[in-house]
Amino acid sequence: MKKSILALSLLLGLAQLAVAQEKPKQNPESSEIWEPVPRVVTPGVLSPATASGTTAPSDAIVLFDGKDGSKWVSVKDYNPNNWSGVTEGSNTWPIRDGAMFSAKGASLRTKQEFQDFQLHIEFRTPDKVEGNGQGRGNSGIFLQGRYELQVLDGYNNPTYSNGMVGSIYKQAIPLVNPSRKPGEWQTYDIIYFAPRFNKDGMMLEQGKVTVLMNGILVQNNTNIKGTTEYIGYPKIVPHGKGPLLLQDHGNPVGYRNIWIREL
Amino acid sequence: MKKSILALSLLLGLAQLAVAQEKPKQNPESSEIWEPVPRVVTPGVLSPATASGTTAPSDAIVLFDGKDGSKWVSVKDYNPNNWSGVTEGSNTWPIRDGAMFSAKGASLRTKQEFQDFQLHIEFRTPDKVEGNGQGRGNSGIFLQGRYELQVLDGYNNPTYSNGMVGSIYKQAIPLVNPSRKPGEWQTYDIIYFAPRFNKDGMMLEQGKVTVLMNGILVQNNTNIKGTTEYIGYPKIVPHGKGPLLLQDHGNPVGYRNIWIREL
Amino acid sequence: MKKSILALSLLLGLAQLAVAQEKPKQNPESSEIWEPVPRVVTPGVLSPATASGTTAPSDAIVLFDGKDGSKWVSVKDYNPNNWSGVTEGSNTWPIRDGAMFSAKGASLRTKQEFQDFQLHIEFRTPDKVEGNGQGRGNSGIFLQGRYELQVLDGYNNPTYSNGMVGSIYKQAIPLVNPSRKPGEWQTYDIIYFAPRFNKDGMMLEQGKVTVLMNGILVQNNTNIKGTTEYIGYPKIVPHGKGPLLLQDHGNPVGYRNIWIREL
Amino acid sequence: MKKSILALSLLLGLAQLAVAQEKPKQNPESSEIWEPVPRVVTPGVLSPATASGTTAPSDAIVLFDGKDGSKWVSVKDYNPNNWSGVTEGSNTWPIRDGAMFSAKGASLRTKQEFQDFQLHIEFRTPDKVEGNGQGRGNSGIFLQGRYELQVLDGYNNPTYSNGMVGSIYKQAIPLVNPSRKPGEWQTYDIIYFAPRFNKDGMMLEQGKVTVLMNGILVQNNTNIKGTTEYIGYPKIVPHGKGPLLLQDHGNPVGYRNIWIREL
Repeated sequence: MKKSILALSLLLGLAQLAVAQEKPKQNPESSEIWEPVPRVVTPGVLSPATASGTTAPSDAIVLFDGKDGSKWVSVKDYNPNNWSGVTEGSNTWPIRDGAMFSAKGASLRTKQEFQDFQLHIEFRTPDKVEGNGQGRGNSGIFLQGRYELQVLDGYNNPTYSNGMVGSIYKQAIPLVNPSRKPGEWQTYDIIYFAPRFNKDGMMLEQGKVTVLMNGILVQNNTNIKGTTEYIGYPKIVPHGKGPLLLQDHGNPVGYRNIWIREL
Repeated sequence: MKKSILALSLLLGLAQLAVAQEKPKQNPESSEIWEPVPRVVTPGVLSPATASGTTAPSDAIVLFDGKDGSKWVSVKDYNPNNWSGVTEGSNTWPIRDGAMFSAKGASLRTKQEFQDFQLHIEFRTPDKVEGNGQGRGNSGIFLQGRYELQVLDGYNNPTYSNGMVGSIYKQAIPLVNPSRKPGEWQTYDIIYFAPRFNKDGMMLEQGKVTVLMNGILVQNNTNIKGTTEYIGYPKIVPHGKGPLLLQDHGNPVGYRNIWIREL
Repeated sequence: MKKSILALSLLLGLAQLAVAQEKPKQNPESSEIWEPVPRVVTPGVLSPATASGTTAPSDAIVLFDGKDGSKWVSVKDYNPNNWSGVTEGSNTWPIRDGAMFSAKGASLRTKQEFQDFQLHIEFRTPDKVEGNGQGRGNSGIFLQGRYELQVLDGYNNPTYSNGMVGSIYKQAIPLVNPSRKPGEWQTYDIIYFAPRFNKDGMMLEQGKVTVLMNGILVQNNTNIKGTTEYIGYPKIVPHGKGPLLLQDHGNPVGYRNIWIREL
Repeated sequence: MKKSILALSLLLGLAQLAVAQEKPKQNPESSEIWEPVPRVVTPGVLSPATASGTTAPSDAIVLFDGKDGSKWVSVKDYNPNNWSGVTEGSNTWPIRDGAMFSAKGASLRTKQEFQDFQLHIEFRTPDKVEGNGQGRGNSGIFLQGRYELQVLDGYNNPTYSNGMVGSIYKQAIPLVNPSRKPGEWQTYDIIYFAPRFNKDGMMLEQGKVTVLMNGILVQNNTNIKGTTEYIGYPKIVPHGKGPLLLQDHGNPVGYRNIWIREL
């Protein structure tokens, strides 16, 4: 009898839990969109194949030149909607072969903050393929520290379309999938305009982003709906200038040749 | 013992349920956004107060002139993403006092289909206030049969901001809340541009909508993300021209002076 | 001989003049565009016909209520690209029948300056028709003191399309011509977003304007190219907030029911 | 006497000419804008410096691969507003060193016509500098055969800002000047969306173009006002798909690695 009472009370507890779960709630999966699947495009190559991407133009701020990581600080437990209370420290990402690699449970953000800009950045996901979907070569570039352009191994690696490489995470599917093979360097050329808010905190104009991936258009003046949430809907929170943030997601993704031009 | 076994199996069943609920799932509440709350603006009035809104200009298609409901058919069980298999019949909405009133579990759609347009429409929610939130004076205007401009009693009637009157339902909060009192006639002046799709089914340009409510800007060239879903995220489904649809949501909401100009 | 020498020197002088005239030069006519001619649309009417337009909403700044002209100062010899050195004085426009009338060679500007806004304004051109083309009922509303929305008698009064009523002067032809008859009150509902400049003085985003004239769309999120010049091309000159300006062009054009909402 | 009569009649003839010149008229110089002057930016380089630009991705139409000029026809006496009556023949531009060079008083247009697209094209102006301003290394890329993205030697070669390399000719000044030296290969990456017209022949949406020159943003979703006229204002003439056109302007400008992706 006692046991059954215990069981009943457990049961009631679970029932309460179940009821609670019928209230407003979101899973990460709620905001995944799997179709349409952007068609694959094989990007062209630089000739000779050993060539790296274009170096910084004269008016760019070089954020990483292959050696000097001092323009970045590490951040833990940041929240795109609330940058206060974030633990920050010196840049802890290892630098090798002219690249910084995401690591150690810390993301990186630039010390400097930006409004409207053109950004060039190169990335490579690990050549040794491990995991799949969102678990393979995952990282991300957060524009103004809030709006994530996804970085992921997109080569024969099915995932939800609005979370694949080239997507504005859980907001905008890329037009096509121009991924190179794992371990190959890839480029993002990004043109970003910050959103505009009024005194009521309403967003008068959305942020806008154009992205070329490996030289191919994947986002065309795409309207950014709000913060790029893992769970739930984009949030609209007024803000001023913001940093660039490179996410550590547990996979050693490399970055190099990072430069930015204020527009 | 038997009881406790029963209890345990029930318990395990509930546990399974709870686990199942951790899988992808959405409630209607998932996509509700309650803040910010658009500030209230009292709209101006026509003078004399008995004046009705502007009559149709010479190049408009008059969709409802106060008497003739023949440009509409009733629809049941429509799905904004799939218009096939919809039950249609003649217009069943009662006409009285120069207005059509939503009723009988059937929505209305125009026989004619449209692309880009300017639409004038007047609506009134019941003067006898019943229910609250989404249950008070609920109806909706579906642009191209897919994208809902919400109609709701917005006068001292808290609900989630992205579902209030003047919102693009569960997508875009209105800039302000210029609601008139229940039972008073209100106006929408709507400028709509259809989205643009490419051969891959990708949306090259989002639909755009500007809305004046009672003469006050509530949506400014707002980008439409996709279909306006009750549960879950907007869907992007390529389409051509589409009808105008007035929703029956169980509340007798009146419509009058409806005219449209193709742009 | 002497005469012919004189003639020759005169001739050479004229030849020099002719050569000089081949150098850069512009007439006002250079920037007139006469086609296409927007088709005429007869706007709807308020019922009863004696009704005036909508009064100001609760959050609007009333710039003219029919009696009080104190929110305006008169300006002479202003230059949209350079507001310094302008002669300003008190408002000299006569007020009668609830309207201000352009007069006395002075334009009016608001004391207050604005950025992004919604503006409602009503105007009437003289009921006694005098002159034609640009000489009939000419005035203008300069947004931020720089960008003119043309005011003109547009009823059976041919002129160049990019200078007719509803045009962004010498920049953007209105979509249609919804003019009322001379002497009748007409409405403009204007949604304006200021242009955005960068540190180099380059225009990163153009100003944008949507205009409903007598309730009919004539400008749809139109990009403003620069200042609206009488002679020559639009000029791009960076600026901050600016006033509203009503032009005196020698014809007694009336204005009433002017209110503005900051966005 | 006879001489002076002759002189007088000549004089009167010139006087008439002078009067005629006071009538509406435009010089090419009328639409030149010389300020602001975009600041110079030295673009980055590919490493090694011998590298050429990216080859065509898998979904691109290769318009010129360095050898085969058969996708182009030569055109003479074309008019961007009227393609009828144009004399066309086979491609007469010489091909050497993997590039086509403008020559022989004929421009080239693609046989195929396009709507919205991404275009990659590389060009070089002559390494032997001759002439100046618009006379040095002049050519042009006409989008849809109507809207010219200027090609010109922009290295230490002052000209009017709205006619320099990177400009939408006589419409939009580039944000900066990222010219390489004469004789060096330069790249344009162009994202183009065609304008949208309604049944009245009114332009509902302007064409839009984003241009990266040598990897640097020079045009950002720029609104195209109409045709890019040498003399006078842009013209708005409705049209459907159109070819790509490379202009011969008397200077041997080379083109290579031309590919286009329909969007």
